Amino acid sequence: MTSTIDFRSDTVTRPDDVMRQAMAKAEVGDNVLDGDPTIGALEQRAAKVLGMPAALWTPTGTMANLIALSLHLQRGDRFLAPRGSHVITDELGSAAWLAGGMPEPLEHDAGPGRPTPDTLSAAIGIPRGPYYALRTPLLCLENTHNSAGGAITPPEEHAQLVAVAKEAGLTVHLDGARIWHAAVALGIPPAALTVGVDTVSACFSKGLGAPVGSVVAGSREFIERARRMRQMLGGGVRQGGVLAAAGLVALDRIGDLAEAHENATRLAAGFAEHGWEVNTPETNIVQVTAPDLVGRLAWLAELGIQVLPSAGRIRFVLHRDLSAADVEETLLRIKTGG
Amino acid sequence: MTSTIDFRSDTVTRPDDVMRQAMAKAEVGDNVLDGDPTIGALEQRAAKVLGMPAALWTPTGTMANLIALSLHLQRGDRFLAPRGSHVITDELGSAAWLAGGMPEPLEHDAGPGRPTPDTLSAAIGIPRGPYYALRTPLLCLENTHNSAGGAITPPEEHAQLVAVAKEAGLTVHLDGARIWHAAVALGIPPAALTVGVDTVSACFSKGLGAPVGSVVAGSREFIERARRMRQMLGGGVRQGGVLAAAGLVALDRIGDLAEAHENATRLAAGFAEHGWEVNTPETNIVQVTAPDLVGRLAWLAELGIQVLPSAGRIRFVLHRDLSAADVEETLLRIKTGG
Amino acid sequence: MTSTIDFRSDTVTRPDDVMRQAMAKAEVGDNVLDGDPTIGALEQRAAKVLGMPAALWTPTGTMANLIALSLHLQRGDRFLAPRGSHVITDELGSAAWLAGGMPEPLEHDAGPGRPTPDTLSAAIGIPRGPYYALRTPLLCLENTHNSAGGAITPPEEHAQLVAVAKEAGLTVHLDGARIWHAAVALGIPPAALTVGVDTVSACFSKGLGAPVGSVVAGSREFIERARRMRQMLGGGVRQGGVLAAAGLVALDRIGDLAEAHENATRLAAGFAEHGWEVNTPETNIVQVTAPDLVGRLAWLAELGIQVLPSAGRIRFVLHRDLSAADVEETLLRIKTGG
Amino acid sequence: MTSTIDFRSDTVTRPDDVMRQAMAKAEVGDNVLDGDPTIGALEQRAAKVLGMPAALWTPTGTMANLIALSLHLQRGDRFLAPRGSHVITDELGSAAWLAGGMPEPLEHDAGPGRPTPDTLSAAIGIPRGPYYALRTPLLCLENTHNSAGGAITPPEEHAQLVAVAKEAGLTVHLDGARIWHAAVALGIPPAALTVGVDTVSACFSKGLGAPVGSVVAGSREFIERARRMRQMLGGGVRQGGVLAAAGLVALDRIGDLAEAHENATRLAAGFAEHGWEVNTPETNIVQVTAPDLVGRLAWLAELGIQVLPSAGRIRFVLHRDLSAADVEETLLRIKTGG
Repeated sequence: MTSTIDFRSDTVTRPDDVMRQAMAKAEVGDNVLDGDPTIGALEQRAAKVLGMPAALWTPTGTMANLIALSLHLQRGDRFLAPRGSHVITDELGSAAWLAGGMPEPLEHDAGPGRPTPDTLSAAIGIPRGPYYALRTPLLCLENTHNSAGGAITPPEEHAQLVAVAKEAGLTVHLDGARIWHAAVALGIPPAALTVGVDTVSACFSKGLGAPVGSVVAGSREFIERARRMRQMLGGGVRQGGVLAAAGLVALDRIGDLAEAHENATRLAAGFAEHGWEVNTPETNIVQVTAPDLVGRLAWLAELGIQVLPSAGRIRFVLHRDLSAADVEETLLRIKTGG
Repeated sequence: MTSTIDFRSDTVTRPDDVMRQAMAKAEVGDNVLDGDPTIGALEQRAAKVLGMPAALWTPTGTMANLIALSLHLQRGDRFLAPRGSHVITDELGSAAWLAGGMPEPLEHDAGPGRPTPDTLSAAIGIPRGPYYALRTPLLCLENTHNSAGGAITPPEEHAQLVAVAKEAGLTVHLDGARIWHAAVALGIPPAALTVGVDTVSACFSKGLGAPVGSVVAGSREFIERARRMRQMLGGGVRQGGVLAAAGLVALDRIGDLAEAHENATRLAAGFAEHGWEVNTPETNIVQVTAPDLVGRLAWLAELGIQVLPSAGRIRFVLHRDLSAADVEETLLRIKTGG
Repeated sequence: MTSTIDFRSDTVTRPDDVMRQAMAKAEVGDNVLDGDPTIGALEQRAAKVLGMPAALWTPTGTMANLIALSLHLQRGDRFLAPRGSHVITDELGSAAWLAGGMPEPLEHDAGPGRPTPDTLSAAIGIPRGPYYALRTPLLCLENTHNSAGGAITPPEEHAQLVAVAKEAGLTVHLDGARIWHAAVALGIPPAALTVGVDTVSACFSKGLGAPVGSVVAGSREFIERARRMRQMLGGGVRQGGVLAAAGLVALDRIGDLAEAHENATRLAAGFAEHGWEVNTPETNIVQVTAPDLVGRLAWLAELGIQVLPSAGRIRFVLHRDLSAADVEETLLRIKTGG
Repeated sequence: MTSTIDFRSDTVTRPDDVMRQAMAKAEVGDNVLDGDPTIGALEQRAAKVLGMPAALWTPTGTMANLIALSLHLQRGDRFLAPRGSHVITDELGSAAWLAGGMPEPLEHDAGPGRPTPDTLSAAIGIPRGPYYALRTPLLCLENTHNSAGGAITPPEEHAQLVAVAKEAGLTVHLDGARIWHAAVALGIPPAALTVGVDTVSACFSKGLGAPVGSVVAGSREFIERARRMRQMLGGGVRQGGVLAAAGLVALDRIGDLAEAHENATRLAAGFAEHGWEVNTPETNIVQVTAPDLVGRLAWLAELGIQVLPSAGRIRFVLHRDLSAADVEETLLRIKTGG
């Protein structure tokens, strides 16, 4: 019987023994009343790594983004984000119904996941029109961009987009759930990818192997407001240090992501050899375009290859629980599969 | 001194003496407690004209759309609408923050304001995916489509789009603020343009000359729920018969809109002769594309020609308070203007 | 056959010929784009009468209150209001779900509709506690207080409550739907009852006979924000001058309310003589307590006397369309009714 | 130097070694995609203990209540709850602004935390009135009732309240954050306290010592909808089994709560001997009434006794990290303290 190979998401990674022991030994406190010391340590370290003044732990990346958007947006506001951004397509609409924003998707005309500064500028239009018009106070970037195939916005393009936004008085939030991937692939520190942003979210449980936990970072004043919003949403856990300890271990392992990138490149190359239409992975996500999406998905399932559809394509996500051998086994199954 | 010619919107039309006398004589009642008889008469007549079982008066078209969307959408829902639809761009985001929907704009690949059935079908995707995914229960059409230049979706295309939506289990709402224009231009009854929709909004104060008032129409069960939602939003007026009387007069005057269409065609032809880039107006809206939008707007203002920017172009709206002579005067001013 | 006498609400009053002629002759404009001149005149006059810097017309009193509360409250805020206030019990919860506030009802320990300053002070508690606690930025008063039987808060008590609120940093909104009644009963100008408040709503269609229309008043800066919120909620009508003209006539008639007060006093006296448990009406509302509420309501209906239950009692509302003869006829029917 | 004794909340308890080892060994999975097996085991066991068909893990009790109320309430709905209920006073208003309900507090006229069936019945009034009136579809109970001093609603009274609610067609939610305390104090299974309710929330991190985690339980259909709502709010964690493992250990320890109850009784007796006005604790919460609340709090802080104000009183919460010796030390410090 064939074992299953799980490419569905980098969220499936499990904590290893080192991480579990760190969790078991974590110093904890009531994080609502006093601040849990290990959460505090993780927040401080994450803020530093992300190049921001302060950070706040959240149970999920969805909550991290939701807190940021809820604080940046008012009713009657529009926000701009590259088409297919996670906050638009993958967070159950909370950016609209809860944070209160009307999204305006930006075309990826500078490359996968990346609008040009001109496109951004045109979309901003008049940030403050007549009283009866939507206002545009927020740009949301996503780096790497998930539905664009883990695509990277390089720092110089990031800087240009931020400059256009700031010139027009916009706040900038960066969904950095997978910012670690962009940093590793470019060989630069994550903070080089947050230049100029007001807030950034990042995830310890996507790819880095922590079981639970994300962070939203920004100014100290923002973080105080975010703490209140987290409590409102039901994210104010107590002795969360047991989870933050895993986050601290995860931050030690950012460099390991390079292996997933190599595996993604190898997998995509194999698919191309096999005649499949595939992206050139910039990080850990491989996207296959198939005319018969449903049929292809069913066939892969039969082969014991677990994947998910994403943005009209088949998404293969590489991560620390998948080895080079798993990649070869996958290619073998596909080659011999029928 | 030059008098001003006002092309900003067909909402600027004023009630004439006939309409005012009808208002002065209107039989009225407390519409929250008993139902106002003139509102009742207007609702009944509007429902019939629109080919729907029942209708509900609202103070504005924005509220009519907002009521429909609030009842059709739940948190976690997405709705589809042609790019630049009024509910997305011109209602202060209430479709998102109040009705609760995440919009997905559809390209106008069948013509101005009109997506193809294939585009709609692809956007629907899987209407009911996993529990953590957005659902897509609603299609919002707009006929005529304002920001696409008063563009008409003809009945056969309308029927195809509705069929695709219904096949996938979607509800269909039609923003028919200017449905009267489409009907007159095509020489068909308005009801021919609502075939298959669940709900439709329509406006008496855009073009038809009523000072205040719109309507949302649908099933009787929908209207009962809409009545409650109207009250929640603060739209439950008392002796509104004074306004509904104007709406009844307005409905007598639908045929008059043809004059505005002729004037629009003449104005656009004049602009083209002048060398301007202009749409081919299908109803009462002329759109001019100008490289230097701000400069062109300022120049028109100097000439006493009042317009508004819309969707990156200059919008000239023809209506019952603008005559053929006004059109000629406008063209003269532009020709000799500088 | 017995004609019906309608005590259900002072919202049932119909515009008379004078009012209708004023409406028919009203100068109008597009109030979204330019400002309608008659709406402007009404707003200016209402602001002056209410002693506020500026005012904004709204289609209903519910919307007037909703706009004020939406602008005064944030998520995580509590607001204080006398138990049974209209914003808590009679506006379909919009103060909670739309304006975003958690209500805290105040006991009427100073008299009907009126909390003592001590009760208010205790309820305020610590206006700004820890980050995980509700905040209390708003006090909502109601004068006259509808469900307390049209009860008046006299200016000196009003001033004390406002002083306590202001001392603690609270904003004060006054629901003055029937403020005219309090002013007439006390023989003072309405502005004497708004001293110190930040915003106040007032109604032209309750008792004063206008068919449609209310107003919210406050600082100029507040009114600009209120205009945007009105548009969001679908209250941005166009040529609303036809309604504002009725509001202007209504303001001329405030003094007429004294007749309704006399009629209320006479009706209550008659009820007391008949052995019924009745309030001592301070303005135009009579409340009868009945052990068998449902039975009593049914019996009144048989007699052709229309009333509504309110706050567990039977409410008789006097108004300009009910005469002293109607009161006598009512008492006669009750005396001889069975 | 005096060590601090922490009576602020039973949320301050820390996981011990046994619990930490269980966490370190927990079998985990991606709970969004597949279901984490340990979360699954905890949900199944919690459902059984609570006498409900199914359960869903949440990061906090606030989110558990928020999910339930969001699914039970619509805009325009009112909910009934004993005065001072946690959902009204201690969850940042999310029951109002997010779940959408207008609260109606019920007096504690049957005893601390407990309304009488008559009070409930009167508050329900007409559950479905005219379309313009609030509806009342929900009763929220709280057992034990925190701000009423950990007060118990005994099963027979619970049953009567549920019967009244059900008779009128209401849904019943029970905030059972501390239901374990009521069960232990009464010597009955927790399921005996959920009879007839539609949904119940319960907490593993209040008193039972788990670092993070709560649960909401109800029908299978409710749980499927709750899963989606949890995801929306950002509570959809991945390998949460590390936390659920602690919850399983916590459930083994319900019996230990008796010690906290004994300590509470001893502490209250000591306070009474000292001449303080104190409640008769039914479970683990002691409430002291002090004329000079602020002064008393400051004095306790000087003595190294950590407490929080709650509902106008000083709250002492007993829990597993406080021993009988801590209670004696506290009484000694107070006796000799000044």
